[in-house]
Amino acid sequence: MGVVTLPKQDRSRVTRQRLLESAVACLAAHGWAGSTVSVVAEYAGVSRGAAQHHFPTREDLFTAAVEYVAEERSTALGALRPQGRAEAVEALVDLYTGPLFRAALHLWVAASNEPQLGGRVTELEARVGRETHRIAVELLGADESVPGVREVVQGLLDMARGLGLANLLTDDRVRRERVVCEWGVLVDRVLG
Amino acid sequence: MGVVTLPKQDRSRVTRQRLLESAVACLAAHGWAGSTVSVVAEYAGVSRGAAQHHFPTREDLFTAAVEYVAEERSTALGALRPQGRAEAVEALVDLYTGPLFRAALHLWVAASNEPQLGGRVTELEARVGRETHRIAVELLGADESVPGVREVVQGLLDMARGLGLANLLTDDRVRRERVVCEWGVLVDRVLG
Repeated sequence: MGVVTLPKQDRSRVTRQRLLESAVACLAAHGWAGSTVSVVAEYAGVSRGAAQHHFPTREDLFTAAVEYVAEERSTALGALRPQGRAEAVEALVDLYTGPLFRAALHLWVAASNEPQLGGRVTELEARVGRETHRIAVELLGADESVPGVREVVQGLLDMARGLGLANLLTDDRVRRERVVCEWGVLVDRVLG
Repeated sequence: MGVVTLPKQDRSRVTRQRLLESAVACLAAHGWAGSTVSVVAEYAGVSRGAAQHHFPTREDLFTAAVEYVAEERSTALGALRPQGRAEAVEALVDLYTGPLFRAALHLWVAASNEPQLGGRVTELEARVGRETHRIAVELLGADESVPGVREVVQGLLDMARGLGLANLLTDDRVRRERVVCEWGVLVDRVLG
């Protein structure tokens, strides 16, 4: 059996990605208190030293992780070609119901109490928020030069965030699908 | 100076209320990890023994606290006579931007990782959610026998929850007011 050996630079990139994805999975599953660099390193099958080489602090690891996965999701979302606005609304709401939202939620709540996280997470959140809004405008084919349209799109993303939160403790899929269906029709009508 | 001495039963009731209000304040300010029965007792100016007499466990104290304050808020909300739907939408969104929402958010997130909290918080959340929905229908003068109206009200409350979450790390008031203003008009038009 041949073992494929990657060049050093590629191995380092693969290790980094594996750490970032493991960090999001740990944060979603165990929350901030249960997610240390050691836990993530073990989960990723990487030595603690290698993990610390990439991310000197816990804050470095987790903000980088949420940012990385958010970027991956934005790219995937940007590549979608939804058939009509109802599908676009569905795709946007889906952003807030998976493990990334869960991980981000744990990070926000931890950041609201931990000063060393707060500044970074706030800055990260603003960046991810702007990017999500930009993609939402594109997917919905919304014309923001029309007064009120910007707020309609923002409110829709706020609703998606609230639906994500409602899904934290119970499987809210059935209710959510009905709400999304109804609001998909309304948003389509409002955006004209 | 005369010291007013309350009957024993009333003193007990006052102590209980003070503990519940302090528990919500602690949870909102320090999160679940920073909120123990001792911290709350000290904050309330009550001995640890007295606190444990009322609430044997931390879970008892915090679920009771969120429930108590949510009930107080429901009562206050139910007594409102908003002038029109725009004001009703504003009042509903206000429910999700104060210390109660912040406390509840910490409780939900902690519950998502702590099995001994999960069941109770889920049950509490379902009860508070039903009550909030009932009041929302009343304040908005919504006729739920019309197909789709139920989902419109639910979506609006999801949006309010999302707006609350957006207010966690930064003061989001200016943006929120614009979104609420625009959606107040939309909801009014949709509900007819």
